[in-house]
Amino acid sequence: MTKAPTATDLASALIQCPSVTPAEAGVLTLLDDLLSPFGFEVHRPTFSQDGYPDVENMFAKISGGEGPHLAFAGHVDVVPVGEESMWQQPPFCGAVKDGKLYGRGAADMKGGVAAFVAAALRYVETHGAPKGTVSFVLTGDEEGPAVNGTVKLMQWAAERGEKFTDSVLGEPTNPNSMGDMIKVGRRGSQSGTVTISGKQGHVAYPHLANNPVPVLAKIVEHVSAQTLDEGTDFFQPSNLEFISFDVGNPAWNVIPEQASARFNVRFNDLWTAETLGQFVTKHATDCLSGGAFKLSVSLEADGSEAFLTRSDSLIDRFSKAVETVTGKVPELSTGGGTSDARFIKNYCPVIEFGLVGQTMHMVDEHVAVADIEQLAEVYYEFMMQYFER
Amino acid sequence: MTKAPTATDLASALIQCPSVTPAEAGVLTLLDDLLSPFGFEVHRPTFSQDGYPDVENMFAKISGGEGPHLAFAGHVDVVPVGEESMWQQPPFCGAVKDGKLYGRGAADMKGGVAAFVAAALRYVETHGAPKGTVSFVLTGDEEGPAVNGTVKLMQWAAERGEKFTDSVLGEPTNPNSMGDMIKVGRRGSQSGTVTISGKQGHVAYPHLANNPVPVLAKIVEHVSAQTLDEGTDFFQPSNLEFISFDVGNPAWNVIPEQASARFNVRFNDLWTAETLGQFVTKHATDCLSGGAFKLSVSLEADGSEAFLTRSDSLIDRFSKAVETVTGKVPELSTGGGTSDARFIKNYCPVIEFGLVGQTMHMVDEHVAVADIEQLAEVYYEFMMQYFER
Repeated sequence: MTKAPTATDLASALIQCPSVTPAEAGVLTLLDDLLSPFGFEVHRPTFSQDGYPDVENMFAKISGGEGPHLAFAGHVDVVPVGEESMWQQPPFCGAVKDGKLYGRGAADMKGGVAAFVAAALRYVETHGAPKGTVSFVLTGDEEGPAVNGTVKLMQWAAERGEKFTDSVLGEPTNPNSMGDMIKVGRRGSQSGTVTISGKQGHVAYPHLANNPVPVLAKIVEHVSAQTLDEGTDFFQPSNLEFISFDVGNPAWNVIPEQASARFNVRFNDLWTAETLGQFVTKHATDCLSGGAFKLSVSLEADGSEAFLTRSDSLIDRFSKAVETVTGKVPELSTGGGTSDARFIKNYCPVIEFGLVGQTMHMVDEHVAVADIEQLAEVYYEFMMQYFER
Repeated sequence: MTKAPTATDLASALIQCPSVTPAEAGVLTLLDDLLSPFGFEVHRPTFSQDGYPDVENMFAKISGGEGPHLAFAGHVDVVPVGEESMWQQPPFCGAVKDGKLYGRGAADMKGGVAAFVAAALRYVETHGAPKGTVSFVLTGDEEGPAVNGTVKLMQWAAERGEKFTDSVLGEPTNPNSMGDMIKVGRRGSQSGTVTISGKQGHVAYPHLANNPVPVLAKIVEHVSAQTLDEGTDFFQPSNLEFISFDVGNPAWNVIPEQASARFNVRFNDLWTAETLGQFVTKHATDCLSGGAFKLSVSLEADGSEAFLTRSDSLIDRFSKAVETVTGKVPELSTGGGTSDARFIKNYCPVIEFGLVGQTMHMVDEHVAVADIEQLAEVYYEFMMQYFER
């Protein structure tokens, strides 16, 4: 059996594969070649959908008998490098300098993937296959449209009969230093459009027209001024923003027929897409006086619901591992944008813990070598507590 | 000397020239051939401006010695016929049927032009050249962009040394029947744009951005809700309409940097472009809280000020002529859209009186033959009172 690599060495090797979404660029082959000799069963399904690029993904697992199934999840694709001449270190160098590992994906999230792979290999090297199953759910489509990645990979695994007990997603979750924060849920995101139809007419004869613009303006102001909620123990308050308002009237002397305003809501688990639609419709209706205007509120189909991971055993054991290794009790948070956890939570409880995210998506992205190694130590410590031996 | 035509015959002949803006289509040549034998001095200047079609216009006058200069003003261009198959009568037939004269321009305003030309020729035929001057200020660019028409023709005449005493514009002013209404001024028209700049950002982190959309929505609602004035003895209340509101944000997850709303004001002589700009700026500023947003209010350059004709002698004498011929005391009004009177009022007092406008710009445009002849009679009666003999 080959020897388990350090998390830093593995991260450096992964960074040297320029796997900008949707390119595989050798990154999965590298992991395949590493995992197979340790006894992992490796699958590399490619998913397709009209209008989107094909994307290759990986599901790898090792089982040592009856027991829980712990899935480490992450992505091996990275965002583009942008203006390469701005980088002090070449973006795909994977070089270590002054205690820092440089390169695109160092923080988001090849460093995280390397940490959980290195931790699992060390576990297998030391203790043999766990009593249960450890798997890696690795997508190549997280930074892209996310249609040929985790959502399909989880479904593919479920159809093969995989039953996941818990999942840890290795996205960078720590705002400032290792041990700061575990994410235990995510806000939902829902977009929609409010349209007011009035009656077109000449601006010199406003009594013959019904101008939808000030009515929609009143709705935008009134709905924006509402408080959706005060937040919960785990979630910040929900928030609605009107991000566009469009009429597109090319003339100066014509009162337009119609005006539309588009909104996005980031919301906690007090709300669903349905109740948000009712909320907007109710408050918009309050702004209409009489029947001169027609209101329509439509919701986009690709919204995501809020979720909160309620598995105390997963959260408590992972928090303990973080505290043991870093000496800090991590905050449990649901803040920030969306992640692939929104797809995983339909199959099992999922939490997120990874590196410090400060340089993600930036020029000269980097992480401290000490942080990568500490992250691998957290994952290893968690596995030690997770799998009874 | 040839005989003066009836107003109806002349209107029919004018209608048969398909002078859709900016085409001359023979209509000025027809008038030239008619006027010159009566002793009129006829000029046909063509005006040009980059980006606009050249347009031919006419200034014709006859003088019988010292005295006031009365200018009849009007346009010989017409709007397009639209869907020709919808017309029961061919649009350029000029046919009389059941006491009505049919064709594009019958009401707006070849009927009016024919009436004042026929009236003036009858006057000259009967009494010789007036003690003073009668002139025709005829543009071919009233229904078009109006840049190569009356505005330049008045300037051209002034530069030649013409001093106008009074002007009568023959636009259709009567809502229902002859004698209803003289227009003694027009509202002004001013357009402008309100722009709010905030700070762009991700919709998931609204505390790091400043969304200009609800702020501009509040401004649009607040400004729209203001009463500009209650009207005056001669003017209806001023009115402001926001006719567009545009952000053009293609994304759902981005709070935009900027939002703009465009407005048009139709206003009476209590306002000027400058005071309107101050009004909008003041009420928009009231909606800003703190310095997080930047407000800009800009006005379009092509606005027109409101005006009221204050010449009692012109209004009284014309009203008396209308009453004598129609038996009705006409209402003095400043309602409706703009007209070329806005260019003429800079040179002399101007009033407007013409046909019944109900079918203007419509399919099967027509006027009653009796109305055209009565209009010519009003103009003739007015000239009889206007020129001392």
